[in-house]
Amino acid sequence: MTQEHLERIGRLQAAMKAADVDAVFLYSAINRHYFTGLTTSNGLLLVEQQGTPAFYTDFRYLEVAHRVLTGVEIRKFKAAKEQLADYTALSKGWKTIGYEGNLTVAQFLPLQEAMANAKWTSITAMVSTLRSVKSASELDAIRRSAQANDALFAELMKVFKPGMSELEMLRQFRIIEANCGLRESFDPILCAGVNAVECHHQPDGTILQPESELLIDMGVLVDDYCSDMTRTVFFGTPTERFKEIHNIVLEANQAVVATVKPGMRCCDVDKIARDIIGKYGYGDYFDHGLGHSVGLEIHEMPAFGKTCETVLEPGMVLTDEPGIYIPGDVGVRIEDLLVITETGCEVLSHTPHEIVLPC
Amino acid sequence: MTQEHLERIGRLQAAMKAADVDAVFLYSAINRHYFTGLTTSNGLLLVEQQGTPAFYTDFRYLEVAHRVLTGVEIRKFKAAKEQLADYTALSKGWKTIGYEGNLTVAQFLPLQEAMANAKWTSITAMVSTLRSVKSASELDAIRRSAQANDALFAELMKVFKPGMSELEMLRQFRIIEANCGLRESFDPILCAGVNAVECHHQPDGTILQPESELLIDMGVLVDDYCSDMTRTVFFGTPTERFKEIHNIVLEANQAVVATVKPGMRCCDVDKIARDIIGKYGYGDYFDHGLGHSVGLEIHEMPAFGKTCETVLEPGMVLTDEPGIYIPGDVGVRIEDLLVITETGCEVLSHTPHEIVLPC
Repeated sequence: MTQEHLERIGRLQAAMKAADVDAVFLYSAINRHYFTGLTTSNGLLLVEQQGTPAFYTDFRYLEVAHRVLTGVEIRKFKAAKEQLADYTALSKGWKTIGYEGNLTVAQFLPLQEAMANAKWTSITAMVSTLRSVKSASELDAIRRSAQANDALFAELMKVFKPGMSELEMLRQFRIIEANCGLRESFDPILCAGVNAVECHHQPDGTILQPESELLIDMGVLVDDYCSDMTRTVFFGTPTERFKEIHNIVLEANQAVVATVKPGMRCCDVDKIARDIIGKYGYGDYFDHGLGHSVGLEIHEMPAFGKTCETVLEPGMVLTDEPGIYIPGDVGVRIEDLLVITETGCEVLSHTPHEIVLPC
Repeated sequence: MTQEHLERIGRLQAAMKAADVDAVFLYSAINRHYFTGLTTSNGLLLVEQQGTPAFYTDFRYLEVAHRVLTGVEIRKFKAAKEQLADYTALSKGWKTIGYEGNLTVAQFLPLQEAMANAKWTSITAMVSTLRSVKSASELDAIRRSAQANDALFAELMKVFKPGMSELEMLRQFRIIEANCGLRESFDPILCAGVNAVECHHQPDGTILQPESELLIDMGVLVDDYCSDMTRTVFFGTPTERFKEIHNIVLEANQAVVATVKPGMRCCDVDKIARDIIGKYGYGDYFDHGLGHSVGLEIHEMPAFGKTCETVLEPGMVLTDEPGIYIPGDVGVRIEDLLVITETGCEVLSHTPHEIVLPC
């Protein structure tokens, strides 16, 4: 654990105090990693408003926990009933207890029953808010993740060509990724030709044809931080139809870069892109939010969406990914990773937007 | 969807009838895949005791759902409140509703509130029981997964050598895996030397030394089915201490293969291995269950553990993975994948148990 992890726990405790939450049960691996730096498949970080948090885990991770964790008390999980009895004993002074919304029902219900006098409240938004503004070290990791993603994309462009199936491109993606010592932050999306209209298409045997487009949505992990980028590349001479749709999506993407700044609400940023696509008559074909936050997870909050009223702050990192998907016709998405700065934004994705390759 | 998926839904409906459960909400991607064959990151399979189940998903997956699903009614998710109102309207005749234990609290609580008059019951055990006995096609996939894992292991043995760090071996693992067109079923565990005593050690900069052991716990996915195998390999001339511990672990592993058959309880199988390790005085150093079921997920139920009273049936697939971990001294685990047959078991892992390689 670093000083930064201890500060994160301090900010969590301050937020708990402000919200009158006496204790929080953090079971998710990502949140435990965020607050301690240690990744384990099994564990609980139990944080009270004051004092040293407790980190519970099983025998598999006790050694590494003792080696890595400094600012928490390490305890071995007992058998289920005894463990619940321990929590109940600890909970005497707790009026309100926080849980993560992604906790499983199987974990939650026994806790709720064992500490039935307490009020249970979701602290998903509280923790998301803390995690939404990235520190200098987090921004550094995300910047390097975006750079690595740019470099991986450039390698792919040397290999992908018409005649290859989506599955063969996926196989090549994973060979090149492994050779670069990289890991993907999500299953890459590779859509040949009209498959791009299924915006979360799963790679299949479809062959990339000459004189057609390829949508590539990909990201990697660097020091546990995600990147995310989409390009829609044309192999051959772009058709007028492709150029028309690509230009509109790019105009929407660029308008966001030019306008976004701290103080704006996420929904207002979404509207910038949506209005441009709507102006050209394609509003019905942009049926997802403009973007999402990125960090330790590929999808974090806040999101650029119609209903997200979160106000942007410097240090937030979000995707800017408008798209137009016209069934049976053409699909284009362009996605960059942005960090909100004091005055606007910095674009972390440096791959060119318009890529035309020979057949 | 195949005839087999329709039969699985039929068996689920029969189990629901036997347990007096009127409807089940299946949100988990794995269960949706098991009952429909379709994998999507978002969806709900809503099954009533009788009639055609409903498959809900969002716009991203509607196209593929219509292309792939035949025996279910496809519906697009509405906005959260409207969707809840739809469920409430549907639930008029439901007295008992089933949920998955791994459903998130954020998904569960609004459902419970909207249908508060119904009794909510976990159907995790019901679905696990259905999934625990594998069909011929599932066994075929798992068999091919174990074969592919054997082949991948053999390729690794050509490359791994003293002087490489665990992280470099991990990088090589992923290059070779990608070249073979394979995907891992879990992050491989690579423990050089005494790191093997941390049975879930994460690969780090530790260098594999000459005259030392390497524990490799790995699996791949074939047609979505997992394999899982562990070997503890020695580079050089095995020490007497290593041979002593390795022989005991192998004796425990082989005693299970020789004894296990339908009708035995899982806990009795665990005891076979535990008694052997205990007899040699190392009982305190075998602090995990003997094994777990494997299928679409790497950890399924039932498990070979001290408290699991499930009775074995032909078609169940479990790992047989005793281990001895003596801090600061030596760690050995040997793991094979078994399928329970009419008369005993078939071992699906064909990699030799005793592997000694030159330095």
